[in-house]
Amino acid sequence: MVSAPLSVIDARSGDKERLRLWIRMLRTTRIVEGELRERLKRGFDTTLPRFDVMSALHREREGMLMSDLSRFLLVSNGNVTGIVDRLVADGYVARAKRDGDKRTSVVRLTPAGVEAFEKMAAAHERWIAELLGGVDTAEVHHLSEMLHAFRSNWEGEH
Amino acid sequence: MVSAPLSVIDARSGDKERLRLWIRMLRTTRIVEGELRERLKRGFDTTLPRFDVMSALHREREGMLMSDLSRFLLVSNGNVTGIVDRLVADGYVARAKRDGDKRTSVVRLTPAGVEAFEKMAAAHERWIAELLGGVDTAEVHHLSEMLHAFRSNWEGEH
Repeated sequence: MVSAPLSVIDARSGDKERLRLWIRMLRTTRIVEGELRERLKRGFDTTLPRFDVMSALHREREGMLMSDLSRFLLVSNGNVTGIVDRLVADGYVARAKRDGDKRTSVVRLTPAGVEAFEKMAAAHERWIAELLGGVDTAEVHHLSEMLHAFRSNWEGEH
Repeated sequence: MVSAPLSVIDARSGDKERLRLWIRMLRTTRIVEGELRERLKRGFDTTLPRFDVMSALHREREGMLMSDLSRFLLVSNGNVTGIVDRLVADGYVARAKRDGDKRTSVVRLTPAGVEAFEKMAAAHERWIAELLGGVDTAEVHHLSEMLHAFRSNWEGEH
């Protein structure tokens, strides 16, 4: 049996490490998401997708197109439509025309939506601080920078 | 206005960093998951939850209880049941009695299931190597260890 050149072995062990990293990222994310889901339900009788939609609209206070909202949340337009419909019915979101454009309709948070979201966001931030409390602050910063660099890299390439 | 003591400011900025880290983890995970979902569909006409079930059973070749499978995958028993039913119909999974225990039924991969999974797993590993290729090998190892420590910590506490 001929042994593989070192560079091939290195690449292969790097690939295994990347797979391990991915599995760990996925599991960590799912565990934290599961916990957030439960707490949002218990504390605010709401769901994670609903929180995500309100969070995106809170960031873009002028309103967002439905298509931009879907793209930002990485889910299908259909899913977002149902969530937005319920938020409109609850008085947390309003549909409006964008200034100077009569055809294009945007959705945005109402003042009641802003108020409701900010209460949830404060709790959400405390929960994350608690759930990610095991990672020390320097490591948090380092991890965060790495993920940022990784994403910029990846989104630039594809 | 009285300024907050330094330790409080530190804790608060650490909390903001943890929130930023969480948002980045979630986004990175969703982007990679979305890409894997598409490639599994295109290359193998299969879904991510189906791949996850086969992956868990591939690791536990003696078979798993449905309840252990659900717990491992962090999804509800109901979801897993539907996926397993289809895998059984496709000949990739079999239900069997555990040795020496006539009441408890376990599910496990059939030889055809092992073969089908190993083909998908090889492609999956290449995809991850590509998608996470932007993170260099030393960083991959570091990130992976951090997530492992974080999870052990967290799962121990809760």
